[in-house]
Amino acid sequence: MTIPTLYPAEDLRMLAQALLVMAGTPVRYAGVVAEALVDADIEGLGSHGLMLLPMYLERIEKGSVDAGASGEIVVDNGSCATLDAGDALGHVSAEKATALVIERAREHCLAAVAVRNAFHFGAVGRFARKIALAGQIGIVMANTRPLLPAPGGAERVVGNNPLAIAVPTGSEPLVLDLAMSAGAMGKIRLAESRGEPIPEGWAATADGMATTDAAEAIKGMLLPAAGAKGFGLAVMVDLLAGGLSGGAIGDAVRPLYGDLSQPYASANLFIAIDIAGFRPLAEFEAAATGFAERVRGSKPVPGGASVRMPGDRAAKAHRDFDGTCRIAPATLSALRAAAERLGVPFPSSLS
Amino acid sequence: MTIPTLYPAEDLRMLAQALLVMAGTPVRYAGVVAEALVDADIEGLGSHGLMLLPMYLERIEKGSVDAGASGEIVVDNGSCATLDAGDALGHVSAEKATALVIERAREHCLAAVAVRNAFHFGAVGRFARKIALAGQIGIVMANTRPLLPAPGGAERVVGNNPLAIAVPTGSEPLVLDLAMSAGAMGKIRLAESRGEPIPEGWAATADGMATTDAAEAIKGMLLPAAGAKGFGLAVMVDLLAGGLSGGAIGDAVRPLYGDLSQPYASANLFIAIDIAGFRPLAEFEAAATGFAERVRGSKPVPGGASVRMPGDRAAKAHRDFDGTCRIAPATLSALRAAAERLGVPFPSSLS
Repeated sequence: MTIPTLYPAEDLRMLAQALLVMAGTPVRYAGVVAEALVDADIEGLGSHGLMLLPMYLERIEKGSVDAGASGEIVVDNGSCATLDAGDALGHVSAEKATALVIERAREHCLAAVAVRNAFHFGAVGRFARKIALAGQIGIVMANTRPLLPAPGGAERVVGNNPLAIAVPTGSEPLVLDLAMSAGAMGKIRLAESRGEPIPEGWAATADGMATTDAAEAIKGMLLPAAGAKGFGLAVMVDLLAGGLSGGAIGDAVRPLYGDLSQPYASANLFIAIDIAGFRPLAEFEAAATGFAERVRGSKPVPGGASVRMPGDRAAKAHRDFDGTCRIAPATLSALRAAAERLGVPFPSSLS
Repeated sequence: MTIPTLYPAEDLRMLAQALLVMAGTPVRYAGVVAEALVDADIEGLGSHGLMLLPMYLERIEKGSVDAGASGEIVVDNGSCATLDAGDALGHVSAEKATALVIERAREHCLAAVAVRNAFHFGAVGRFARKIALAGQIGIVMANTRPLLPAPGGAERVVGNNPLAIAVPTGSEPLVLDLAMSAGAMGKIRLAESRGEPIPEGWAATADGMATTDAAEAIKGMLLPAAGAKGFGLAVMVDLLAGGLSGGAIGDAVRPLYGDLSQPYASANLFIAIDIAGFRPLAEFEAAATGFAERVRGSKPVPGGASVRMPGDRAAKAHRDFDGTCRIAPATLSALRAAAERLGVPFPSSLS
């Protein structure tokens, strides 16, 4: 019952797009979101995959996500701009911010686009990678509602804010995508949906006691990775994304799975550095590739597998893609229920 | 013998400056370095303090540091520039890069200065803080010779690369300054000089075995903080600093304490984001201050001390400064030997 099963990715993508369209999303925006969700499942990032879609749909129906919006530029100083996402689907406003920051970095060498009133947009690495594919260094971050205490604190004060950095190599970019807790809330939700425990050191209960119970962790706190280091980075993401955009910081960001009629109110920051502003892109790519090969070829621990660079696992998942991806039964049931409610045919391949 | 003792900070600063001048450093540059070293000792960052000075002096004498240099701008595209530090004293080239990136960010909203052929410049947070004092977000990073294996690796492939992010608040900036290992090499050297063990989880021997012996750790490897997270950030600092500057990446950076006649060959990156490009600075500062106060006022663990924001400890050290700072006996002995060699009077207050 709780073991994820392999399903045709293209059928899942079409179903997701149709569900979003029937909920009122323009076809092109629905395609952007559906592709991102299925890509996450292909990459094994179930927490950023289709398990999110029923909640997205409910938020559209309840009005906290404006499926027709893509965001408006409200501050524009060339290299610096602010997008008010207006509660657009997160992947849609993130695509817009990504395209804008790439264009502005081409003009100005460096550019930054801050986004406020943003909805959840999945893996930050997806958008950093797109910037890297344009021959630029991409840095993307977002804040979430508070989930982490400070070191020595017993109260959630800062989000488990993700940060991605991607660099071009001439082929597949190197992509670092990390959140600031020892374990991601999405993975804890996935564990909860699968009825599995979470690793020790990931979370504390609302009273600050260590726990491996996913449900207790969701009600409690995530512990920052490496103590003050993970905490400090989370704080800085909140200050940069929320502070520059004039959007929400800390407690002003709402729970993703809380009252689904209330906007999420996240803030994001997209930074792009055009490598040509410093040196020929091909030189940089050769240096990055050389370093990556040096690391991948380094000696593993006795009996260990080969050593990976940031992003290698996701890239391998796409290389090895056979047309199927793994979906948890609970996610498939929720998609089926949404299909029935919205009047979307449920493909026989997913039954 | 091995317990650090309190000495007058101003006498230490004057001694350090005189030693640098007698070794051939222009007075102004010597003042910059001396102040930075003593500030680190005041802040309790002994690893970035005067313990470094004897090595700096020896490098000047052996020619791997050019005490008269401050670096030359070799690429200039306005918002993006590259400084070839030419083996200048690190604090001197870092001051130059900091001033340049602030000036360029004022003009262009965003700016980045990459630095190659750089020597060690102490705490990256010092320079990020200076950018924040100019009303900008400061991001500063540097690479070091490889000290960390990849997760699952048994070979040093990437430096324990420091990264700092600082934001203005209207009063003292919030300053995050982290290295990517569980514990800093400087602190391990300090432990070695004091004959103390290092905490578990900080290091492995050259064979990859866990160790708490500082000398074994120095010959071996530092372990990345939070595994793939610390490792990934270290990789990105190497790629950004070394890659953009056209300087050294990975193995091309030399040991700080290796052959002192060989240039260190570090690479740095300084990024500044002028907040006025997005919104009025005072608004940002109010938001940052509000968030900081929320975090500092959060509930501590039972029996715990109050909660700190990044940089609070260093700021408190300066507020509480009583004119003295703590210096290890080994450091003082080395300074005395240098003073004798260079013909600098050794102040009686330090005896």
